Amino acid sequence: MTTTTPLGFKFAVWAAGFKKNDRPDLALLVSAVPAATAAMFTENVFQAAPVLVGRELVAKGGKFRAVLINSGQANACTGDEGVLDCRETQSLVARAAGLRAEEILPASTGVIGARLKMDIWKQSAPLLVENLGKNSAEDFARAIMTTDRFPKFASEEVLLPGGTIRLCGMAKGAGMICPDMATMLAVLLCDAAIDAPLWKKLLREAVGLTFNRVSVDGDTSTNDTIYALANGASGVAAGEKEAPALFTAMKNILAKLAYMLVQDGEGATKVIRIKVQGAKTAQDAERIARSIGHSPLVKTAMFGQDANWGRIVCALGYSKAAFNPATATLKICGIEVFRNRRPTLIDDDPALNAALRERDIGIDLSLDDGSATYELLASDLTHDYVTLNGDYRS
Amino acid sequence: MTTTTPLGFKFAVWAAGFKKNDRPDLALLVSAVPAATAAMFTENVFQAAPVLVGRELVAKGGKFRAVLINSGQANACTGDEGVLDCRETQSLVARAAGLRAEEILPASTGVIGARLKMDIWKQSAPLLVENLGKNSAEDFARAIMTTDRFPKFASEEVLLPGGTIRLCGMAKGAGMICPDMATMLAVLLCDAAIDAPLWKKLLREAVGLTFNRVSVDGDTSTNDTIYALANGASGVAAGEKEAPALFTAMKNILAKLAYMLVQDGEGATKVIRIKVQGAKTAQDAERIARSIGHSPLVKTAMFGQDANWGRIVCALGYSKAAFNPATATLKICGIEVFRNRRPTLIDDDPALNAALRERDIGIDLSLDDGSATYELLASDLTHDYVTLNGDYRS
Repeated sequence: MTTTTPLGFKFAVWAAGFKKNDRPDLALLVSAVPAATAAMFTENVFQAAPVLVGRELVAKGGKFRAVLINSGQANACTGDEGVLDCRETQSLVARAAGLRAEEILPASTGVIGARLKMDIWKQSAPLLVENLGKNSAEDFARAIMTTDRFPKFASEEVLLPGGTIRLCGMAKGAGMICPDMATMLAVLLCDAAIDAPLWKKLLREAVGLTFNRVSVDGDTSTNDTIYALANGASGVAAGEKEAPALFTAMKNILAKLAYMLVQDGEGATKVIRIKVQGAKTAQDAERIARSIGHSPLVKTAMFGQDANWGRIVCALGYSKAAFNPATATLKICGIEVFRNRRPTLIDDDPALNAALRERDIGIDLSLDDGSATYELLASDLTHDYVTLNGDYRS
Repeated sequence: MTTTTPLGFKFAVWAAGFKKNDRPDLALLVSAVPAATAAMFTENVFQAAPVLVGRELVAKGGKFRAVLINSGQANACTGDEGVLDCRETQSLVARAAGLRAEEILPASTGVIGARLKMDIWKQSAPLLVENLGKNSAEDFARAIMTTDRFPKFASEEVLLPGGTIRLCGMAKGAGMICPDMATMLAVLLCDAAIDAPLWKKLLREAVGLTFNRVSVDGDTSTNDTIYALANGASGVAAGEKEAPALFTAMKNILAKLAYMLVQDGEGATKVIRIKVQGAKTAQDAERIARSIGHSPLVKTAMFGQDANWGRIVCALGYSKAAFNPATATLKICGIEVFRNRRPTLIDDDPALNAALRERDIGIDLSLDDGSATYELLASDLTHDYVTLNGDYRS
């Protein structure tokens, strides 16, 4: 392994057999010492059992030692029994690892509605724990995949006044991935010594600028979870003065993971970066970006490599945001196509046609109406999306 | 023709050549006498020239004689010149038909961004007018089609105390239909004698219960327009007392057209009827229905004939509506699949699988949380949708 991993964390994976293939589907990470912890969860009203359990634990405050994730079963819509099952998985792993159950943060991803297979959990928990230290952070990223086509891992080193600190992030699946699969899961690790309130503030801000600005299909799952642990194992303190450098590294990691989530969106062939500038308010800018990024017509046009500015202007028009239509200017891949309520480009511009064949597509909307901006990463809408999601579950 | 057409209206169509095929693309209807008129237009900020012109005319009040529609060119995003072009088409037809230009209500559907081909209009206007009386209302419905697979026409007769009145409706294309095609257009005609304020009120209410409750892809076009003309040619008056019977007929016609719009949605194979009952407020009920009806995951599952209740529950969960998750009950095609936060049906129920193969799919959500209801018709999301919208425009 040449990639950076923060000090003081050990990783383990195990193929318990929850998924149809024989890839690892259990992932555990344990910090040598209790870590300052921040977390964010889905806002869906139907929250999976591990979300309910994790949220309650984090709300109590205190430090945590471990994150435990299973893929293949979401443990969502499983009622009170699902919560008991989740607590039992914490206990099983805690017993094997010599931890307290409430030091372990749980997350799940997979099929909604089915109870966890507790007999398999009982057999697997000690075998999983035995692997601690034998696996890497990237193995962890691979074990939490469901229908993801590739693991999502990113890392950074930062030189602070007190020395070097390391961060890494692992994530899986944007939006609702597969026939009744839920979930975007992410774990961010850091070996700086940092107070929990500052760590929580930095995570919230970094997520707001990255993960909260991606869209595959607009569907927010029952299981979305981000855990962030900072264990201080580097011996380097990060306070208010070091916060900007730390924040930049956190944002970089999460932005890389967010890009990969969109790139690996269901059936996606494009990563569409929608930038709205000059809006009256931040809310208007966000509304417009989401209206464009969620439009099936815009998404299919980008799949078709078609500079269909009419659909983008149309999505702007029905966004319900406040803006002046007379001053809206639209560029696709850096080439102006619409200004002053009119098209400014003849069809079939060779430079634009070439740019639309690339994976990265820029949609830049300038409103000249204020100073608020918003940026959203969106995937395109493709035949493979329909195939992945329209096929029978069986 | 065996179908009902209101008295005192003449129809004409003409193949001017705006579309690539040689089908009629100009449609005109003229009332023998000025008609009480109601209209509703798209709420998109970017409004096509005919929407701007028609809206201004109707806002001035007064009665109208004619509706003039061209298909193939939307006259949207064409600036002030587009408005002048639109006015010129009114003048051309008015001159040929012996009408005043401002008695003619315009509408357009087709490619966004291109100026109207005025040379063709000049040649075609007299030829179109010559056909008045030679064509039928159904010919009119056919001439306004763009990529519609079939014409949308419906009619009703109502026996009022003063005698029989007749209504008919013609419509085209739900949502944004085809590569840069805009538009839902509809015309409702009636031969009752009715005061404009009552006619307007009935139209608004009937549209609220029908056209405003369909969704193909959630994209609201630049050109959506409904014109409703009542010319009194039957000699039968419809006042407050007759309003309920008239309203029922209007609603029936618009509901039939709305169903056909969804049935003929881009690539659609299903008509999904989403009923939300027992919501706290009407707004909550609508939010939930739209969250489900707009979810690409729900729409692809229905295409796949998959009773994927998890996606419906998930869309309910992120709808941002207020509801009690503990009392939500979900039925698909009349069969209960979810209650008390848990699935209530084992997978692969033969009756449910058979029902999912039909065109009409029911999704019934009962919230037991109040008395508000909402019903939405939605299409499924299919490979043909992606093909239709992802192909190059050329």
